Amino acid sequence: MPDTPPDASPAPGGLSRRAVLGLGGGLAVVGAAVGLGVGRLTAPEPASTSSGTRTYPFTGAHQAGIATPAQDRLYLAAFDLTTSSRDEVVALLQRWTTIAARLTQGLSAGPYGPASGPYDAPPDDTGEAADLPPAGLTITFGFGRSMFVGSDGADRYGLASRLPGALVDLPHFPADNLDPARTGGDLVVQACADDPQIAVHAIRNLSRAAFGSATIRWTQLGYGRTSSTSTAQRTPRNLFGFKDGTANVKAEETSALDEHVWVPASAASADSTDSRWMTGGSYLVARRIRMRIEPWDRTSLREQENLVGRNKGEGAPLSGGTEFTEPDFTASGRGGQPLIATNAHVRLAHPDFNAGVRMLRRGYNFTDGNDSLGRLDAGLFFIAFVTDPRTHYIPMQNQLSKSDGLMEYLEHTGSGLFAVPPGIEDGHFVLGADGTPLTTRHSPFVGQDLFA
Amino acid sequence: MPDTPPDASPAPGGLSRRAVLGLGGGLAVVGAAVGLGVGRLTAPEPASTSSGTRTYPFTGAHQAGIATPAQDRLYLAAFDLTTSSRDEVVALLQRWTTIAARLTQGLSAGPYGPASGPYDAPPDDTGEAADLPPAGLTITFGFGRSMFVGSDGADRYGLASRLPGALVDLPHFPADNLDPARTGGDLVVQACADDPQIAVHAIRNLSRAAFGSATIRWTQLGYGRTSSTSTAQRTPRNLFGFKDGTANVKAEETSALDEHVWVPASAASADSTDSRWMTGGSYLVARRIRMRIEPWDRTSLREQENLVGRNKGEGAPLSGGTEFTEPDFTASGRGGQPLIATNAHVRLAHPDFNAGVRMLRRGYNFTDGNDSLGRLDAGLFFIAFVTDPRTHYIPMQNQLSKSDGLMEYLEHTGSGLFAVPPGIEDGHFVLGADGTPLTTRHSPFVGQDLFA
Repeated sequence: MPDTPPDASPAPGGLSRRAVLGLGGGLAVVGAAVGLGVGRLTAPEPASTSSGTRTYPFTGAHQAGIATPAQDRLYLAAFDLTTSSRDEVVALLQRWTTIAARLTQGLSAGPYGPASGPYDAPPDDTGEAADLPPAGLTITFGFGRSMFVGSDGADRYGLASRLPGALVDLPHFPADNLDPARTGGDLVVQACADDPQIAVHAIRNLSRAAFGSATIRWTQLGYGRTSSTSTAQRTPRNLFGFKDGTANVKAEETSALDEHVWVPASAASADSTDSRWMTGGSYLVARRIRMRIEPWDRTSLREQENLVGRNKGEGAPLSGGTEFTEPDFTASGRGGQPLIATNAHVRLAHPDFNAGVRMLRRGYNFTDGNDSLGRLDAGLFFIAFVTDPRTHYIPMQNQLSKSDGLMEYLEHTGSGLFAVPPGIEDGHFVLGADGTPLTTRHSPFVGQDLFA
Repeated sequence: MPDTPPDASPAPGGLSRRAVLGLGGGLAVVGAAVGLGVGRLTAPEPASTSSGTRTYPFTGAHQAGIATPAQDRLYLAAFDLTTSSRDEVVALLQRWTTIAARLTQGLSAGPYGPASGPYDAPPDDTGEAADLPPAGLTITFGFGRSMFVGSDGADRYGLASRLPGALVDLPHFPADNLDPARTGGDLVVQACADDPQIAVHAIRNLSRAAFGSATIRWTQLGYGRTSSTSTAQRTPRNLFGFKDGTANVKAEETSALDEHVWVPASAASADSTDSRWMTGGSYLVARRIRMRIEPWDRTSLREQENLVGRNKGEGAPLSGGTEFTEPDFTASGRGGQPLIATNAHVRLAHPDFNAGVRMLRRGYNFTDGNDSLGRLDAGLFFIAFVTDPRTHYIPMQNQLSKSDGLMEYLEHTGSGLFAVPPGIEDGHFVLGADGTPLTTRHSPFVGQDLFA
């Protein structure tokens, strides 16, 4: 489900969609030398839908990779900026935008690809994705609070006056055991695809383009998406063996997206800073949640289901029904005990107990080998996109950390909060035959309004 | 391509294939409660071939996961035995065999599955694969030298007299920088599938069944197989962006398999020990080869191609032709310089320069995040199956370590050598309705002849 509207409409300050498509018709086949075929950045129709060859438009009101149906694999990287130059940050975002626009359409990272020369220079693209289809790749960019305000309070890039109020330092939650090497970062890049080689290739080539300006702080590979973001997707299972994300906000729920995911124009008016650049964006909350797999696997089925508040096979609430039946938190059984325990996860995470708040979750299972005791280092890499973490994440996580019975089996080992700016509007960005942007002298880039 | 022969034949000391199938016809649907459908351990035909639902027979002259067409994902675990009891080792191998036979046929780890009770016990299966198809899962078991002879020389389980001569301690190679925490192990389990969640689920449930007898020493996740093991598979690319495994031994080359992969009966006669139990087995060489990605990505295309000895786009040897053209090592160009350099990888790894030796490679790309300097911890998890590592791995690796130009960009950080016993013959193993083996009072298990 592309984020772009179906109708052509004039874009502010740019070409109309129709005009862009006119240009687009003349686009040369970039990447044919490496077998990648034709890519086009403003797709007139929902993109190709056969599994491996699926592409999603890079342009749109919102960045792709949020309301896009969750792909099967994740590679996410947090970067630290190593430059002190604002201009270099802008140049990095311009390079990243151009490369991301190319990669998501199945093109190589640069017009010369991995293998077409010049022979005495490093190839434009590292090559390991050369024969592979685009696999539904999306690339989503975000900014950490540390880009706006350094740890010493410094206004590193003249952006302090643009810091949104919602881009807070997350508080310490009771069950946190955060590893600084897996936490924070000035920038984040989320690459999702149905083939891990495609997602890793994207981060690798973006990382390469960051050389001299930014360096990777931490990364996370994920597989087996743990949430559905479309009603067409079945609910997957997390590493506790339970269905996860049954009540997730789905792409089809446009009013719920407006209420719970996208940042409204009105948000800026509540800020003392100028945060209008975030209108149409979202906030990415990342939490690396290690699961204590071995003790969990020695827990009785009854206890597992009581802690979750759903049965394990069907995913139905313990108050009865099937997976999508609303839980009845008032239902009680023997001795008047509630069928869904007071410390059950499904109760404490439910909108009824969280001021009506919902999230768009887009997490993945992870397995990062084992620790020195032979225990699996595995769990859930939680990703949620929310309109404001102060209302849509922090209160719920405080409640879960304190009261959720599942927390005995969970440990938060990494964390990040990033402001994800809106997308680049259709008509503002189209690649020419050599892979350079055509429509403006200065190529637009993700986050451009922040640096305006 | 299953390893089992197409025709029914009496199995020594067991039931004929036909008789087993007679029994098989009465097998109940194990796992239906969790939506897994029917599993059958002795498939009369090549197993189902549609991608997700494909299964490979667990039984056969050789273990599956060797000549089986390489699946897309790997999870490999090396275990250390923590028990001093030979009987417990046997019991562990029996449990593992039964569970592996079930999982590879799309069944849950045990007859009660993840969610069908009893409610006051932990579930038989951890559940995260409950709704997923079998995804071509194979599980392959092997034994490390340390199981036969402890580091103090002790005969830990009365197996010293059965140690094959080929199960050596690998020598130190010049470019080795081995991490003890990623090296060795008493047992190895290789799980391959087209879905990582299936491979991880298999190792997790086998690890659970090892509780009290063995503990995980190290694990490795891999993706994007880096070799083809069937002529029907295209050649994939490694993280240097080059096609890898063009000259691999393929499953269709049965005489090459006999010569280079399977252990012949004659091998035992050369041993002072009784190693007949390895006839029909193979040796698994595992090497975690980290690639120095960042300097490689700054190397010119010309240099990359010269180091590999093939061009990057097509994978053709630099002496000309296309991917499958034999390299001409005598061809020279300007100034009489050989077109394929004397230190090119393709030359030094070629059978012509290695006494005619070939390997069946079955490696995977890996990406394990980044190090503290932000560099990718990524590369090739090399797996090869060979008839004898003394002839088929050590000499080549010595040559490559000393002379291969690529070694500047490679670092071996983990290592393992394991004796992989033959498979369980058809007719020796079939599961009843409750998931327990039917054909013998004492269930056969992988490696049984070793403990006989």
